[in-house]
Amino acid sequence: MEKILRIGLIGAGRIGTLHGNNLARSVSGAKLEAVAELRMSTECIEWAQGLGVNKISSDPQAIIHDKNVDAVFICSSTDTHIDLIIDTAREGKHIFCEKPIHCDIDAIRRAVSEVEKAGVTFQVGFVRRFDRNHKKVRDIVASGQLGKPHIIKITSRDPEPPPIEYVKVSGGIFMDQMIHDFDMARFLSGGEVTEIAVYGSVRIDERIGQLGDVDTAIAMLKLDNGAIGVIENSRAARYGYDQRTEVHCDKGCVQAGNELNDTAIISTVAGNICERPTWFFLERYNDAFIKEAQAFVQAVNEHAPPLVGAWDGLMPVCIAKAAQLSLREGRSVKLSEIM
Amino acid sequence: MEKILRIGLIGAGRIGTLHGNNLARSVSGAKLEAVAELRMSTECIEWAQGLGVNKISSDPQAIIHDKNVDAVFICSSTDTHIDLIIDTAREGKHIFCEKPIHCDIDAIRRAVSEVEKAGVTFQVGFVRRFDRNHKKVRDIVASGQLGKPHIIKITSRDPEPPPIEYVKVSGGIFMDQMIHDFDMARFLSGGEVTEIAVYGSVRIDERIGQLGDVDTAIAMLKLDNGAIGVIENSRAARYGYDQRTEVHCDKGCVQAGNELNDTAIISTVAGNICERPTWFFLERYNDAFIKEAQAFVQAVNEHAPPLVGAWDGLMPVCIAKAAQLSLREGRSVKLSEIM
Amino acid sequence: MEKILRIGLIGAGRIGTLHGNNLARSVSGAKLEAVAELRMSTECIEWAQGLGVNKISSDPQAIIHDKNVDAVFICSSTDTHIDLIIDTAREGKHIFCEKPIHCDIDAIRRAVSEVEKAGVTFQVGFVRRFDRNHKKVRDIVASGQLGKPHIIKITSRDPEPPPIEYVKVSGGIFMDQMIHDFDMARFLSGGEVTEIAVYGSVRIDERIGQLGDVDTAIAMLKLDNGAIGVIENSRAARYGYDQRTEVHCDKGCVQAGNELNDTAIISTVAGNICERPTWFFLERYNDAFIKEAQAFVQAVNEHAPPLVGAWDGLMPVCIAKAAQLSLREGRSVKLSEIM
Amino acid sequence: MEKILRIGLIGAGRIGTLHGNNLARSVSGAKLEAVAELRMSTECIEWAQGLGVNKISSDPQAIIHDKNVDAVFICSSTDTHIDLIIDTAREGKHIFCEKPIHCDIDAIRRAVSEVEKAGVTFQVGFVRRFDRNHKKVRDIVASGQLGKPHIIKITSRDPEPPPIEYVKVSGGIFMDQMIHDFDMARFLSGGEVTEIAVYGSVRIDERIGQLGDVDTAIAMLKLDNGAIGVIENSRAARYGYDQRTEVHCDKGCVQAGNELNDTAIISTVAGNICERPTWFFLERYNDAFIKEAQAFVQAVNEHAPPLVGAWDGLMPVCIAKAAQLSLREGRSVKLSEIM
Repeated sequence: MEKILRIGLIGAGRIGTLHGNNLARSVSGAKLEAVAELRMSTECIEWAQGLGVNKISSDPQAIIHDKNVDAVFICSSTDTHIDLIIDTAREGKHIFCEKPIHCDIDAIRRAVSEVEKAGVTFQVGFVRRFDRNHKKVRDIVASGQLGKPHIIKITSRDPEPPPIEYVKVSGGIFMDQMIHDFDMARFLSGGEVTEIAVYGSVRIDERIGQLGDVDTAIAMLKLDNGAIGVIENSRAARYGYDQRTEVHCDKGCVQAGNELNDTAIISTVAGNICERPTWFFLERYNDAFIKEAQAFVQAVNEHAPPLVGAWDGLMPVCIAKAAQLSLREGRSVKLSEIM
Repeated sequence: MEKILRIGLIGAGRIGTLHGNNLARSVSGAKLEAVAELRMSTECIEWAQGLGVNKISSDPQAIIHDKNVDAVFICSSTDTHIDLIIDTAREGKHIFCEKPIHCDIDAIRRAVSEVEKAGVTFQVGFVRRFDRNHKKVRDIVASGQLGKPHIIKITSRDPEPPPIEYVKVSGGIFMDQMIHDFDMARFLSGGEVTEIAVYGSVRIDERIGQLGDVDTAIAMLKLDNGAIGVIENSRAARYGYDQRTEVHCDKGCVQAGNELNDTAIISTVAGNICERPTWFFLERYNDAFIKEAQAFVQAVNEHAPPLVGAWDGLMPVCIAKAAQLSLREGRSVKLSEIM
Repeated sequence: MEKILRIGLIGAGRIGTLHGNNLARSVSGAKLEAVAELRMSTECIEWAQGLGVNKISSDPQAIIHDKNVDAVFICSSTDTHIDLIIDTAREGKHIFCEKPIHCDIDAIRRAVSEVEKAGVTFQVGFVRRFDRNHKKVRDIVASGQLGKPHIIKITSRDPEPPPIEYVKVSGGIFMDQMIHDFDMARFLSGGEVTEIAVYGSVRIDERIGQLGDVDTAIAMLKLDNGAIGVIENSRAARYGYDQRTEVHCDKGCVQAGNELNDTAIISTVAGNICERPTWFFLERYNDAFIKEAQAFVQAVNEHAPPLVGAWDGLMPVCIAKAAQLSLREGRSVKLSEIM
Repeated sequence: MEKILRIGLIGAGRIGTLHGNNLARSVSGAKLEAVAELRMSTECIEWAQGLGVNKISSDPQAIIHDKNVDAVFICSSTDTHIDLIIDTAREGKHIFCEKPIHCDIDAIRRAVSEVEKAGVTFQVGFVRRFDRNHKKVRDIVASGQLGKPHIIKITSRDPEPPPIEYVKVSGGIFMDQMIHDFDMARFLSGGEVTEIAVYGSVRIDERIGQLGDVDTAIAMLKLDNGAIGVIENSRAARYGYDQRTEVHCDKGCVQAGNELNDTAIISTVAGNICERPTWFFLERYNDAFIKEAQAFVQAVNEHAPPLVGAWDGLMPVCIAKAAQLSLREGRSVKLSEIM
């Protein structure tokens, strides 16, 4: 008989409901047992009931301490993560935590320390590692068939800028958007970032600049395996979610492009017209979110290390910190200055 | 409050379990209420229980006559379709029937007549109409933006030949495989096929030839709107499920290609290597099967005509009959000879 | 010291000036020595002088009998071919003849018989054999790496219909346009066509129909190696010159697509827009025309059989005749009825 | 009557013979009148004679002072450029100079000053501006249809590292290879580079590192129009000449990819295999070299400013100097420090 992991979800916003739906419907071996949302609403209750959830609460602690819950998905706002991680770990429950763990490195270390003490499984939500396209790039590199990596190249553009209210609390483009690409750089290359330099520009929305942030940014990375990398980000691709990765190696190059809405091509005197990429992360990474949750359930059940562990959660935050410093001081920054 | 359509499934083979899974998990407004399978097994019972099915039986009639069933999915073998359709229609229940309805035109007419008498919704399982790629081709043509259609072109190749035991009862390549393409030709062009000529060859498996069937076939079609069409079929593409459609019109052409396993491209001195198409119909038409069932539920709930009705089920069978005659007699055959 | 083949050109129309330019500038080992054009003009004289041609005449015989001419390119109208071939062969000069050799099979046989008697090199202008893309398809098939061929598939669409005056003397779509595809079918498959069936339609210009011709046509072929083939033609693609070939074999498929004007892709909210194919044969087969002439020079100099010989010139004409009969009588026609 | 520009070529190495062949055969309005090569050889004499060149010399001055020469192509080694430019300008002859003009900024300024005094046409050999693909990207950006540029992205990888002897005198990767990309960044964006930061690595050949050079490099650029840019270079792509450009703008993105050897795709169970990019610049930029020379002839004949003038020749050298300083000092460098 299959073992069922009973999961409590904390935070039922956009990303929380996404995970909730997947856990209830598409992740085998998992059961969505409980949902907590601070700003509980009728709509949220109906949603959770529709998924057959047994316990619905506005108090995260009710879930953390529930004996019927084996593991917790922390999908609440970033500032709440540390306390929730520590409390959950102390209850001996397994943890899936959305990215970023936190914006403060010491706080992350404190939380991770508790997790290690408790010996529970701890996985961080860098979902792109589960995208079949990026994963294929990484698998080809990791296989060694192309030799050692020389250049890592990552393009990551959101379709539209987020609301300015979101930008205010986002932690800035490096902590909010490029953090995924810092994770990708590590994932694809199999190396650690040692140094970063960035350029940023305000091209899309002046208000973003007034907040001291940028909406268009590029970064250069040095890695400890000798590879170097480039990342470029835009808050507004306009044509969809542009997510491309590439690794150039000794013997050639592997790259992954976008997924398009469909394969149709219309040929007229005006040219060949095909579909744009899928619109945003919900469309592009839909399958990856399911695989991510599945991997967590499997890691718990098999007592295996998670595919994205505490260190993988910490490092991109450190790189983002270094990127912020690089932008502020107009110079290349070594990771050793940050950590 | 959303209305729930309670569905009974008859036949839990490959296609039946596919529909069962979708109805239970992915089709909103539907409930998989009952499952009947003549050759009931422990495995089948566990599968149905896992989906929360209330009634599990080895007798289709138990489902047809169950008051808790509003609609029936007929997914049993083709030879059983006619009686099940007639019995279900007489119970006033809505019907989804897998393709082909039957291989005998008069039998189909008899069943359709009962369906019409009962006034129930009747949808036939031509799932490709719900594939986003083929549908895009059809939508572009139907929009009129390219003018009237000139040439319909359909490529359809299975990855591997079916077991010879399957071929024996399949009805032959035209009734079993190309029947989907006959449906596509009607769907894409918006016209009716009036004449067909075919060439066939045995290239893959001599035993298929010994059965009087072919494993490689091409067809030319005339349509009543003046367009002409070509279809080509192979039982063994080897590289996956090759499903391409194209319509050339007054002002240009629209075509839909295959879906690939991923978007990665590996560039080495040997060339650029990318993924092959998805392996077979389960992978390629996964989403389409869900949309197909969803469309049935919606048609029933809204008392709307189904997107693939009785006539759409009958016509491809007639075209397949004409194709068989063309192959046998080595000449072009008018549909009026068959109907 | 390199041997120079002195070439006389008969016919300085569109295709003749194309060959003349190539022979004068881009074909090593060749010298454009003389040009004859029945309707000689000042423009034509200036063109030939600009290429450094020594003899310019309005009389083809002046070139055929010129001692300084080693080989003759026959690019005049189709009805003049037979006499020019016979006269040139009797002078012991090598011959390059544009396609089709003629529309009368007996006339072709008579000319070929004279060529064989004279022992001169005779090459026919099926230029697509020298296109790097189609040639790659053929080379892959001929290499045997994919096993034996099952299905030959050829798409060939002109960008715009020719002037109606041209259509009148063209010999019809099968002799004028699809003849290239008949050659391709033989070239790609390595087999001989044994039977053909066609459907045709008038979709573009009613006047073409009034001439008893069609502007849209499809054909099915049987080949003596067991493969079957489909060809489709349109006189008006509108988006450019659509030239695609494909061969499906035991182990997979090889296909060649169009060449685009450039590789740029514009991504906006409206989709991805890339260039259409090159406009017509002058753009698409520019390099192939040079390679074709080069191959002729080489065959002459090395006393090697030409890559497209007399038989290759005759067969497509026979297939076109069979296609015309198929269209007229609405039935499949065996090549043995024609030859 | 067409005016003919009589051209003297100085330097008959790889790039010189390329230009010589084009000028003699493919550039209308041009005549290759004279060739000078310091290390004259029998092979070189035969080559020039084969092109119908009147004067062949081992002394560049013989060409510069020849009354039958209207314009000079300077294709000798970089260190000889300055004197040849000055001498040619003083003779009142038009100048096409290969890139880079020189590695010393003051020397360039001195030469440019003489050119301006003489009022002759002066064009620099940044051939990529004439590539149809990059030019399309630039034309789309310049048209304003996508709004203002945000991110310039350039990939440029050579197929194989040059001989180590070449690397020694090359001026380093920034002056020798990335200089083309600095030109592209200006060309594509329509802006001026104001700041640069680079990372470099030795991944391919240790001996390159021993020379103080790198074989793998990335750069970030700031432009005066607010755009930012990334460039990446490798000395060894292995799979061919990888030349891609991309500009992301307000309303979307335009990118140009590689040209492939052919369009054929082989589909087997191993995947889809297509051709790699053209091998190196001779293949990729073959047409662009002809267009470049044609543009020079046209600029001279029409007394129009050249498409790549003195300033366009100077700026990439300055950016390369700044890049070298950035690599050496590990910091971002403003162009104002250099100029």
